[in-house]
Amino acid sequence: MLTIGTIVMGAADVRRAADFWGAALGYVPRDGAVDADWTVLVPAEGPGPGLALGLSTSPVQDRPRVHLDLYAADAAEQEAEVARLVALGARQVDWDAYPEDPDFVVLADPEGNRFCVIDATHG
Amino acid sequence: MLTIGTIVMGAADVRRAADFWGAALGYVPRDGAVDADWTVLVPAEGPGPGLALGLSTSPVQDRPRVHLDLYAADAAEQEAEVARLVALGARQVDWDAYPEDPDFVVLADPEGNRFCVIDATHG
Repeated sequence: MLTIGTIVMGAADVRRAADFWGAALGYVPRDGAVDADWTVLVPAEGPGPGLALGLSTSPVQDRPRVHLDLYAADAAEQEAEVARLVALGARQVDWDAYPEDPDFVVLADPEGNRFCVIDATHG
Repeated sequence: MLTIGTIVMGAADVRRAADFWGAALGYVPRDGAVDADWTVLVPAEGPGPGLALGLSTSPVQDRPRVHLDLYAADAAEQEAEVARLVALGARQVDWDAYPEDPDFVVLADPEGNRFCVIDATHG
C-alpha cells in the first residue's frame, strides 16, 4: 500500500528551511547532509513522515491550498512551542479568520510557508 | 516535541476528497463520519500522519508550493498504484518538467491537488 512518504515544501533558501524545520521537528537530513536544491529531513528517532525542502519559485499562498498542522500535546505546550518556533525564525501570522476559542495558531516559516500549531487536546 | 499531525488539503467537495484519499491510502475518518466542511482521515491501522480535507476556495497551484509525495515500494508497485489511483478518480498530469528517468509520477486528485507517486527504491 502507498504511504505518505514526505510532505514537500518550497523554499527560496533550502539550507535555511532545512535548519528551521530540522530544529522545529527534531529532524535530520536523510542523506546525511543538506543539499541546496533538495533535502529530505526525517525524524532523528522514531517514526514519522519525512519533510522535503525543494528550491521553488512558486508563490506562497496567504490561504494555502495545502499546509501542515503540527500537534502539541496541550495548550501549555502549544504556547511554548509557538514561542520556540518564533525564536527559530518563524513569525506569527495576523490571521483574519480565527474562530472564537481557536485550537490553532497560524505561523509562517522563514520561507513564508504558512502552517499551524494545534492544541491536540482542545476538543 | 511537536509532531506532524496532519497534512491539510483544500477541497471543493470534502466528501469526494475524503472518499478518494481514504481509498488511496487505506485511511478512515478519525471521528467516524465524514463532515462536509472538515474531515480528518487517519490510517485504518498502523502508524502514519493524518490527512485532513477542508473546504477551500484557494486555487490549486500548477506547481504547488506544498505537496505530498506518496511512496511505493518499487517500480512495479508505483505503476500499479498510479493505475489504481486513476481508477479512483485521479488523473495523470502532463508534467512539463520531468527529468530523464524520473523516480516520480505527477497526479492530481479529484479536487485538482497535485501530488506525486515515488518509486522509493529508485536510488
